[in-house]
Amino acid sequence: MKTKFNTSIGLVKPKRANFEQSVSLESGVKLRDIELIYETYGDLNKKRNNAILICHALSGNHHAAGYHSKSDKKPGWWDALIGPEKAIDTNKFFVVCPNNLGGCHGSTGPTSINPENGEIYGPDFPVITVNDWVNCQSILADILGIETWHSVIGGSLGGMQALQWSISYPEKIKSACVIAAASKLSAQNIAFNEVARQAIISDPDFLQGQYLKNKKSPKRGLRLARMVGHITYLSDEAMREKFGRELKEGKINFGYDAEFQVESYLRHQGDTFSKNFDPNTYLIMTKLLDYFDPASKHNGDLIKAFKEIKAKILAVSFSSDWRFPPSRSSEIVNALISANKNISYLEIESSKGHDSFLFPEERYTKGIKAFLLADYEY
Amino acid sequence: MKTKFNTSIGLVKPKRANFEQSVSLESGVKLRDIELIYETYGDLNKKRNNAILICHALSGNHHAAGYHSKSDKKPGWWDALIGPEKAIDTNKFFVVCPNNLGGCHGSTGPTSINPENGEIYGPDFPVITVNDWVNCQSILADILGIETWHSVIGGSLGGMQALQWSISYPEKIKSACVIAAASKLSAQNIAFNEVARQAIISDPDFLQGQYLKNKKSPKRGLRLARMVGHITYLSDEAMREKFGRELKEGKINFGYDAEFQVESYLRHQGDTFSKNFDPNTYLIMTKLLDYFDPASKHNGDLIKAFKEIKAKILAVSFSSDWRFPPSRSSEIVNALISANKNISYLEIESSKGHDSFLFPEERYTKGIKAFLLADYEY
Repeated sequence: MKTKFNTSIGLVKPKRANFEQSVSLESGVKLRDIELIYETYGDLNKKRNNAILICHALSGNHHAAGYHSKSDKKPGWWDALIGPEKAIDTNKFFVVCPNNLGGCHGSTGPTSINPENGEIYGPDFPVITVNDWVNCQSILADILGIETWHSVIGGSLGGMQALQWSISYPEKIKSACVIAAASKLSAQNIAFNEVARQAIISDPDFLQGQYLKNKKSPKRGLRLARMVGHITYLSDEAMREKFGRELKEGKINFGYDAEFQVESYLRHQGDTFSKNFDPNTYLIMTKLLDYFDPASKHNGDLIKAFKEIKAKILAVSFSSDWRFPPSRSSEIVNALISANKNISYLEIESSKGHDSFLFPEERYTKGIKAFLLADYEY
Repeated sequence: MKTKFNTSIGLVKPKRANFEQSVSLESGVKLRDIELIYETYGDLNKKRNNAILICHALSGNHHAAGYHSKSDKKPGWWDALIGPEKAIDTNKFFVVCPNNLGGCHGSTGPTSINPENGEIYGPDFPVITVNDWVNCQSILADILGIETWHSVIGGSLGGMQALQWSISYPEKIKSACVIAAASKLSAQNIAFNEVARQAIISDPDFLQGQYLKNKKSPKRGLRLARMVGHITYLSDEAMREKFGRELKEGKINFGYDAEFQVESYLRHQGDTFSKNFDPNTYLIMTKLLDYFDPASKHNGDLIKAFKEIKAKILAVSFSSDWRFPPSRSSEIVNALISANKNISYLEIESSKGHDSFLFPEERYTKGIKAFLLADYEY
């Protein structure tokens, strides 16, 4: 009998890595005593060359696959792709997924204690960048004794990290999967992030970010931020398939309770998220998204930004993704072609919008599997 | 010399219509002592058959054209289309534009006194529908002695009213211009409205809608609601043209002040709007949008819903409008064709998104002008 456990990697336990060195951030701030929480799936081989780094997106964390306990209802966020014989095959690869710096699931972030003064960082935690994340992941690789990643893989903001890896550490990465991503946010992307930030910052319980010290939480703001975000993760088509204009009670009630199914769904998503995520982390991660723009250091020339890349790259986009539509992946692909790099591109038909990258559509998972195994000779 | 005044209708003064009869709303509620504020431009001819009704959208009002005083910096919201020799030519037509029931610019609405108890309506003002609006506009027509509109015209929610007019009063309307509209909201449209409502309702100063009595205002929530709305009014393209990823100070500052131009713009739009609009009205108007679905009374069959239409109809859509894209206008057009109605359709190339309907693109304004004059024989 196939159970949820024997199709997945099974029970997993988070690990912790403590950085001995302090890290200089792009903002100029220096952070010490950094700790990253991470999970690993599969085994590192003797040559230590079968390691894959998974980079999480905006609200993700280190728990990408498997279960923390037998009573867990849901596995890690990318269990559909990571596991025995899956797209990212844990029978063959050693998969590493950290919660990034600034996160709120165990890695050093705004809810951690600032070693400089013994108090919670809160709003004093610095704004960080994709570069900073990639640098911390590189230190984690050193700690784990991984000199070269077989691949660095991520969707959305995770795809941006994979791309930055190929730019920042050309010698330490053999391949990258840049999924449902863009080389920079559009003005509209930034606008949605700004609404999310304003929702959090203008919540009276935000208290200039000092809500933890004051035993408060700007939950209303974070809930709204997530609701807005969620609309951009789904396609209009996905919402139509999922909810249509279905009324909860079959008729309109001329009131403000949730009447349409889509209203209940959004409220539920917002409520759940606002209980489990730190608002300061959300602010940091949206800013980090806004700032990502590797071409900016090359006068906006993406081809120049890609000059040092040695990794072979697979870009993947989804037809119904309107947050980072196929046209945004094409910008990356075209610049890589112009820079004479090894680039493959997969456009997947899907109605699930930006969230498509989380689901195991067959052409998508087979495409990634084939890409990862193409030069697997360990 | 051409000044702002001699290309426009010039100075205008709002008028008031008091309903003698009470009005039964679709919700079952009966309202009495209804007053509508409205403006008129041009003159009603002797045959009283050159009248055009302008229907405003979500945040619109009765001030569609001209200026209230010589010191006004901006004319009415559709001055680009309404005026002497303009698309809706006030030298030929008598143009009427009311602020709809439930509004907050002078017509009976949540900020008015409830004649039943002498107190401000506030949250007790009933949820209304496009049908209710059209019925009130019909009473206004009776008061003005207009038996038949030469045309009923509106963009967005205004277009929905024009469509509903053609369904509800086939004998009282010769033509309708249904611009940048849809026959019902999509789940995504409803989702955006729901975020806006939740922003208002979850503002601690909303006080279950009793903010006026308590001398408060849920401005933070209304500001967020408008920011979200504004993103959906512009296209990604329009935002790129307008702001790109331009930084206010030319560099990133690793902080939460407005850094990108688009952030300042959105904050400004939200701030201005939240000072000038009533939150309860905003709730009512978004609900009214969600409820609009003339096919729902015909088992979802739009062709049947259109059966009694006699007016000739011009549908207009804009290529970059992602709130109500051309595909949504096509649904209306195709159903009208199937119902054997007199339908013309104009798809306009424009980069300005949903807001395109407010701007005088030449093919658009000439198209409307030609449509209105095609059987002008007064």
